[in-house]
Amino acid sequence: MQIIVVGTVAFDSIETPFGAVDKILGGSAVYITLSARFFCENVGLVAVVGGDFPDENVSLLSDRGIDVDGLQVVPDGETFFWAGKYHYDLNDRETLATHLNVLSDFDPVVPEKYVDGSIVCLGNLEPGIQRNVLSQTRAPRIAIMDTMNFWIDQTPESLVETLALVDCLIINDSEARQLADEPNLVKAAARIRNMGPKSLVIKKGEHGALLFSDQGIFSAPAYPLEDIHDPTGAGDSFMGGFVGYLAARGDASVDSFKSAVVYGSAVASFCVEKFGPQRLLEITSADIERRVDDFRALAHIPAPASAF
Amino acid sequence: MQIIVVGTVAFDSIETPFGAVDKILGGSAVYITLSARFFCENVGLVAVVGGDFPDENVSLLSDRGIDVDGLQVVPDGETFFWAGKYHYDLNDRETLATHLNVLSDFDPVVPEKYVDGSIVCLGNLEPGIQRNVLSQTRAPRIAIMDTMNFWIDQTPESLVETLALVDCLIINDSEARQLADEPNLVKAAARIRNMGPKSLVIKKGEHGALLFSDQGIFSAPAYPLEDIHDPTGAGDSFMGGFVGYLAARGDASVDSFKSAVVYGSAVASFCVEKFGPQRLLEITSADIERRVDDFRALAHIPAPASAF
Repeated sequence: MQIIVVGTVAFDSIETPFGAVDKILGGSAVYITLSARFFCENVGLVAVVGGDFPDENVSLLSDRGIDVDGLQVVPDGETFFWAGKYHYDLNDRETLATHLNVLSDFDPVVPEKYVDGSIVCLGNLEPGIQRNVLSQTRAPRIAIMDTMNFWIDQTPESLVETLALVDCLIINDSEARQLADEPNLVKAAARIRNMGPKSLVIKKGEHGALLFSDQGIFSAPAYPLEDIHDPTGAGDSFMGGFVGYLAARGDASVDSFKSAVVYGSAVASFCVEKFGPQRLLEITSADIERRVDDFRALAHIPAPASAF
Repeated sequence: MQIIVVGTVAFDSIETPFGAVDKILGGSAVYITLSARFFCENVGLVAVVGGDFPDENVSLLSDRGIDVDGLQVVPDGETFFWAGKYHYDLNDRETLATHLNVLSDFDPVVPEKYVDGSIVCLGNLEPGIQRNVLSQTRAPRIAIMDTMNFWIDQTPESLVETLALVDCLIINDSEARQLADEPNLVKAAARIRNMGPKSLVIKKGEHGALLFSDQGIFSAPAYPLEDIHDPTGAGDSFMGGFVGYLAARGDASVDSFKSAVVYGSAVASFCVEKFGPQRLLEITSADIERRVDDFRALAHIPAPASAF
């Protein structure tokens, strides 16, 4: 297995100024695996759903070549449900409902055929579950995690324990400030890297993303989108594109991480164009490559003028 | 004259979490001319001060080769005064006092030796005063303006009239959204460019800057600063570096505008390192060039891997 992904598989109800959808397929592991799959063949999913989860949703993933042997089904349980609403500026979202359901007793089991996976991708989950998954793998080349404000608030000690075990953390700017208790992002990044992850990606939404590593800082632009229909899954699509690119590239150099940030940004920029994971089901690798070219053009600083 | 700058010359009292200063030299025209002067010899100032303005402040500018023949002195008037306070996150500032004083009757006179200036730089002022200055020049190669939320609110018709006359507008992101009445920056930029300025620079503070032109969008990163002592003058230093670079480069190509955004960002990144214009009095052109190199490294996306 090239990539092992643990995360949520969910039903999402989403409202934005551009429309609303009810109980569609969602969850971090869905967005991550769909996005990673553009880059490499072997992506395995570790997650849990209830007996209410339709077979066609499982097929949607397996038909695309995602290994679903790590997807547990709890026949008498209900699938994790999230409902949220985005307002006009699309930056802040309001959570209307969170029903953990089967997620509250989730005891992940990594299938034997996954345990030699070279990249372990820990989607946003309770930090103890993230460690549990990591401990079931043998010696991943890269361990990458996400987290959120809820775990920073509620389980800080457990979070710090998981952070110490990973190579890379991907979070957004407000989470980075909260985790480090420091408003300046450069200082916050230094503190977080001292907690464990040698590489840190800070996502800034419409302002792009920053990569902090031993070789300093890399700043990736955001793709300037005119029509954002639904930001749900953007962060997870970023993570999927990021780990997918790294797996395909096959090395853990800082240059690979920089490019991975751009590929992650490219996939995320598609994700938000339609509701839920819909757009990820339409695009091709060629679309992603074209958008990466757009990112290059966008960020290109002209060479110094010879006459100057 | 290569660059004509109209703007305010002021006394500023500034409080930030890192200290406070009382009635120091400030004003948009001071920051713009000091910053532009790093790049070209001939920078002329059009502004007004009161009889309370000390000779040593005038000398500070003229000693650095800034032409002050366009600086009016109203002997029985008082110099424009601004007092402001920045809070911990340094993004929002609170205006504690604004005394227009001699600025309220400012009738700018462009000295004859300035009127053939190739770049006219209209600092943030009442839009009618900006047009007045522009009308006194013969045929500048580039006319560039700044504005602020106050004029967008209070004198929208006059502002639109000035916008129609300039080649380039430099504003921040919240002002762009307000001016266009549109939260999406890409759409807002299209609307503003339809009002006149073919080139539009949107400054996003710690998130860098965007250039919108006939050749699409260019995204410049921000310099990741650990210690920002005083954001006062950052926007004006950006404008000064921007116009200074354009004047030195001597052409109005999109590539020149892109580089100008980076040079403007570099000068602004120095400005905020100390209170008031202090840091601009210490650095050299070589310091600016080194920081521009840092910007290049920061934004450089590695070439595609050949093996991929």
